[in-house]
Amino acid sequence: MKIGILTGGGDCPGLNAVIRGVVKTAVLQYKMDVLGIHDGFYGLVNNKIKELTIGEVSGIMPRGGTILGTSNICNPFRYFSLVNGQKVYSDVSDQVMKNIKANGIEAVIVVGGDGTMAIADKFNKMGVPMVGIPKTIDNDLYATDVTFGFDTAIVTATEAIDKIHTTAESHHRAMIVEVMGRNAGWIALHSGIAGGAHIILIPEIPFDYDAIVKKIYERKGAGKHFSIIVVAEGAKAKGGDVVVKKIVDDGTEPIRLGGIGNRVGDEIERMTGIETRVTTLGHIQRGGSPSPFDRILGTRFGAEAVNLIANKDFGKMVSLKTPDIVAVPLDEAVGKQRKVEPDSGYIKAARLIGISFGDR
Amino acid sequence: MKIGILTGGGDCPGLNAVIRGVVKTAVLQYKMDVLGIHDGFYGLVNNKIKELTIGEVSGIMPRGGTILGTSNICNPFRYFSLVNGQKVYSDVSDQVMKNIKANGIEAVIVVGGDGTMAIADKFNKMGVPMVGIPKTIDNDLYATDVTFGFDTAIVTATEAIDKIHTTAESHHRAMIVEVMGRNAGWIALHSGIAGGAHIILIPEIPFDYDAIVKKIYERKGAGKHFSIIVVAEGAKAKGGDVVVKKIVDDGTEPIRLGGIGNRVGDEIERMTGIETRVTTLGHIQRGGSPSPFDRILGTRFGAEAVNLIANKDFGKMVSLKTPDIVAVPLDEAVGKQRKVEPDSGYIKAARLIGISFGDR
Amino acid sequence: MKIGILTGGGDCPGLNAVIRGVVKTAVLQYKMDVLGIHDGFYGLVNNKIKELTIGEVSGIMPRGGTILGTSNICNPFRYFSLVNGQKVYSDVSDQVMKNIKANGIEAVIVVGGDGTMAIADKFNKMGVPMVGIPKTIDNDLYATDVTFGFDTAIVTATEAIDKIHTTAESHHRAMIVEVMGRNAGWIALHSGIAGGAHIILIPEIPFDYDAIVKKIYERKGAGKHFSIIVVAEGAKAKGGDVVVKKIVDDGTEPIRLGGIGNRVGDEIERMTGIETRVTTLGHIQRGGSPSPFDRILGTRFGAEAVNLIANKDFGKMVSLKTPDIVAVPLDEAVGKQRKVEPDSGYIKAARLIGISFGDR
Amino acid sequence: MKIGILTGGGDCPGLNAVIRGVVKTAVLQYKMDVLGIHDGFYGLVNNKIKELTIGEVSGIMPRGGTILGTSNICNPFRYFSLVNGQKVYSDVSDQVMKNIKANGIEAVIVVGGDGTMAIADKFNKMGVPMVGIPKTIDNDLYATDVTFGFDTAIVTATEAIDKIHTTAESHHRAMIVEVMGRNAGWIALHSGIAGGAHIILIPEIPFDYDAIVKKIYERKGAGKHFSIIVVAEGAKAKGGDVVVKKIVDDGTEPIRLGGIGNRVGDEIERMTGIETRVTTLGHIQRGGSPSPFDRILGTRFGAEAVNLIANKDFGKMVSLKTPDIVAVPLDEAVGKQRKVEPDSGYIKAARLIGISFGDR
Repeated sequence: MKIGILTGGGDCPGLNAVIRGVVKTAVLQYKMDVLGIHDGFYGLVNNKIKELTIGEVSGIMPRGGTILGTSNICNPFRYFSLVNGQKVYSDVSDQVMKNIKANGIEAVIVVGGDGTMAIADKFNKMGVPMVGIPKTIDNDLYATDVTFGFDTAIVTATEAIDKIHTTAESHHRAMIVEVMGRNAGWIALHSGIAGGAHIILIPEIPFDYDAIVKKIYERKGAGKHFSIIVVAEGAKAKGGDVVVKKIVDDGTEPIRLGGIGNRVGDEIERMTGIETRVTTLGHIQRGGSPSPFDRILGTRFGAEAVNLIANKDFGKMVSLKTPDIVAVPLDEAVGKQRKVEPDSGYIKAARLIGISFGDR
Repeated sequence: MKIGILTGGGDCPGLNAVIRGVVKTAVLQYKMDVLGIHDGFYGLVNNKIKELTIGEVSGIMPRGGTILGTSNICNPFRYFSLVNGQKVYSDVSDQVMKNIKANGIEAVIVVGGDGTMAIADKFNKMGVPMVGIPKTIDNDLYATDVTFGFDTAIVTATEAIDKIHTTAESHHRAMIVEVMGRNAGWIALHSGIAGGAHIILIPEIPFDYDAIVKKIYERKGAGKHFSIIVVAEGAKAKGGDVVVKKIVDDGTEPIRLGGIGNRVGDEIERMTGIETRVTTLGHIQRGGSPSPFDRILGTRFGAEAVNLIANKDFGKMVSLKTPDIVAVPLDEAVGKQRKVEPDSGYIKAARLIGISFGDR
Repeated sequence: MKIGILTGGGDCPGLNAVIRGVVKTAVLQYKMDVLGIHDGFYGLVNNKIKELTIGEVSGIMPRGGTILGTSNICNPFRYFSLVNGQKVYSDVSDQVMKNIKANGIEAVIVVGGDGTMAIADKFNKMGVPMVGIPKTIDNDLYATDVTFGFDTAIVTATEAIDKIHTTAESHHRAMIVEVMGRNAGWIALHSGIAGGAHIILIPEIPFDYDAIVKKIYERKGAGKHFSIIVVAEGAKAKGGDVVVKKIVDDGTEPIRLGGIGNRVGDEIERMTGIETRVTTLGHIQRGGSPSPFDRILGTRFGAEAVNLIANKDFGKMVSLKTPDIVAVPLDEAVGKQRKVEPDSGYIKAARLIGISFGDR
Repeated sequence: MKIGILTGGGDCPGLNAVIRGVVKTAVLQYKMDVLGIHDGFYGLVNNKIKELTIGEVSGIMPRGGTILGTSNICNPFRYFSLVNGQKVYSDVSDQVMKNIKANGIEAVIVVGGDGTMAIADKFNKMGVPMVGIPKTIDNDLYATDVTFGFDTAIVTATEAIDKIHTTAESHHRAMIVEVMGRNAGWIALHSGIAGGAHIILIPEIPFDYDAIVKKIYERKGAGKHFSIIVVAEGAKAKGGDVVVKKIVDDGTEPIRLGGIGNRVGDEIERMTGIETRVTTLGHIQRGGSPSPFDRILGTRFGAEAVNLIANKDFGKMVSLKTPDIVAVPLDEAVGKQRKVEPDSGYIKAARLIGISFGDR
């Protein structure tokens, strides 16, 4: 049997553990051949497909990124191209079908987030046996307890907050750390608690600048002249944010204006006069050697995905239902987001030890 | 209300997160006073008790160890002392009762393993309100899914195995890494999978030297001239181990003979002629800054233990039933060990990717 | 004898090693008393001075920051205050003299950068025995080979670049990493080489956007679809940079516009159409546990500074002349910057392995 | 021009930076071809030689070990083999000469320690152009200020000592950490100072058990109930060590008896009754991702070695004369060891802050 594997969407620590788990299980247990599809669905459209051997996956588990490459935005059902300088979208799914056939691929393992899973589901329904492996560094996929990459992101963010701590303390500053999390505040919540933050701002709990300032003054009153504020990139002020100064675009270059972290920093400085500094962690959260947890989960996902193929149990996505790996139908897995519940145990514990979410 | 807290047994990353969680919750939410009992039950016997303020727990979360100190072996019901050079054991529990009363302590939070919980249970039944927080770096407590310290130990062990990997590969050696786990193989299993070990030996699966050697030769046959073997300190050969050479004690000094890791290394070298090297990780597994997971779990345990006290729900131990913190009766919590089940998902996935447990 | 110690300027890993080295040497070897002056010269003006014991410096070496606190901008000869909302600068050096006398301080150890050393030199000439210890995370002090903090900053920056590497590779992007270095490119140069950067931009070598783009295309031609560009915050384009779009300030809030890293990212994206991402490391470079090198150098500086005091060799700054610690007159130590020489061994080696400095 | 490169002796972090530096410089600057010789001189004897491309060295710098493999003991002038079960040594240098010719190799870069350099010197004198790059993790090569691998080893050892610290403190124990250093105490000295050790034992300063115990009691008297003792594997008691108990060998298996660390631990426990624990760091000190310092130094060494070849300046070894890379004749480079001088600045500073070397 010949199977293919591709990784789609943003990169994430643990992808190489998945790939290694897939290849080792397929080759050693089931004598399958594995083809590596490069750069996500782009490689399936453009036939960037090569054999993937045990030798090639040897030693890759501790490395970040994906040896297969990925592409963020490639959807074969709405494939972007430039024709005479014009953006054109077209359906090139038949090209995918042709390449799959030409390469003799009998099933495809697709590693990706919500968007990738939706595409996999479509192809599966068109007759290409597909098995999904969930990937999201933000931890916002509904259908799995957690997925690989998230733990490593928290480790990276927590280490950064630890480092910021000493500067804050030595300088009596309010330090803002912006972490990933456009729709869900998981990384901010976990790294904020672990990093000893005093205020955590997440999309699920709209915040109030007055409440933030109150907390800072409370700390000052108790002799603590610094505060650590962890902000998810998708955090929002109640009733929308204050108006930013206008930017007049008089040229051709784009301009980067930083995100909510900068907004919060500016506003606190304006309201309190306390020196603030903003650090936006950005892409370092996606990189680095995966944590043991992510390596193990990635390995288990990879091995189980091959099991599903061996059992001809297609159209499924592997999923963690702690401590077991189970399979859920692809079409049930997509379209629902896992958010932080404002009255979950994590939030309650955080409030008990005095962390403010900027809402009261 | 005035409460006490002590940490007993071997130290473990996350203890300071627990202490901080307890003090912050008690002082900030419930206006309780917290007394720190030093060096475990030894401090309760000998009245080493001092107030513990918010200021003192500030900044301690990222640090390993316990700011309260601990003692491994102190049991007030069988208290060890030397009288005229003779070892004497006596029941000094009345002294504990006296000190609790004298200090005005109305409830005690006890952080420790199975032995510590059994003592707490006894005192609770004697009328001292007790709440337990489980601690075991080996992850072998039955009553909780997992506890703090284990994740950090795995991170430390995995980092060490990662480092050993390059030496093994560069030198064509069999490298043996002995990790903690006297009764249960959790650390060996997790760090072994995460570290890319080829053979993992755990107490739950008795091993066979022939099976180990077979795996090493299998790898050699496939062009891999090195092997990584992770051994739990409690791993055992089927039918007991081979006889060690006699040691004649002709002096007064004790002698250290290394553990099972050394045995396995010697035996492989003898059977195959392949150069082996043994690394016994030892106490570095107990140290270091706790991982984010352990900091968060420790914080939640601490906060919830105070909640139990505030609700006068004594005689309980907090416990993780993922993702919730629940309370279980102390007497149900003790005496049962959590072992690796030989047909669990972790073992199966490990076998699928070709890891040998030395049993076949 | 009674001595004081203060830390001034931005915080820096290794300050606590210095403080510990000073206290241990002073107390253990010379039976001196040490007074800790808090928040830099601000504490000397405002009498924030407390005894500093061996117990208080125990265990502080692995921690970032400074247990004494610091202040960035406090100059007693030009002391800033707000009088009726107006900024006023005045000379309060007499207050410093008074506090030194009142506390019985016979000599002061001052840890800081160029500005701090200049102030120390003034006080020394006014009769207060002063000894300096150089501190600059940017490594731009002329009078010492290197100082503590720099090695740790490079470790932090290199780790970040390592993490960025896998993302760049997986996504075929140009990744820009902006590191510290306003006047000198030491951190960019060292972390750039160590992190495997393809282009390094430093203040000492003005760059050309065309040369950057040429290098990126060169790599693309060789099949490498990603590039890592490390930029010192003080890097400058030849002939000044292109005009940024105007920003109309219609409100009261300040706005943060990112630095040269963002400029470079925008320009590359505009010129090549290649996706770019910018990461500004910011304050995490100042934090974290100091590296062994910085701990050792800090300790040696601290011990030697006390030796100078014991020998009444005042008005000096300790300095590393590898591998020795020597003393240089304070007034010779200030006012000269150490820059990267464009034809130094480091730059030559970097060019040999194909690194571009954007100048050709 | 066609050049070869081999790595000999024990592995060491930074070897891959050297290899990468050599290949990039040779290929990009001088259009040379590079052949990788595998497993040290063994590969030169047995013709394990393959082309080494830019692609193959891409991304290897952050990895420990050597992609070329190494062999500890292979000397072509005294080549070990088993003939009819008998150990036989023979001179196979003619085979090396033949292989060099057959592969068209015009010069060889040899990375290794003292033994490897001596062999390179011999071949150079026999007419094979050789250039050496010094490698020793112990830092005991006389001819270079320092070499790569040493800084990483210190980082690893210091991290381990940091972890041991919290356990020691929590448990009131004497913790012994045995680090590498058979002939010279550099690693023990540096990691001991950086790790906050209280006692450091090195080969250059014979120690006295009474002096060790005195220091432990001194600390106890000052209320410090734990001590950290860092021991180089080559440390020795004054007048030789106490007699170990006899071991009667009644079987075929070898037995491992731990080294000086265990001896010191046993003796302290016997003399004081204080609980001791011994950790022998072993091979993890040779592994891991090289520190930025080691990556940069390795890169510079590699680039400069190719420069020497390009200039036909053979029979030299590159060497660090801070901050420059210089070339020294191979025959001047070998046979002399760099030891810690008992009255060097490092030792003096260590004594000033109260560290004992067990000699007084």
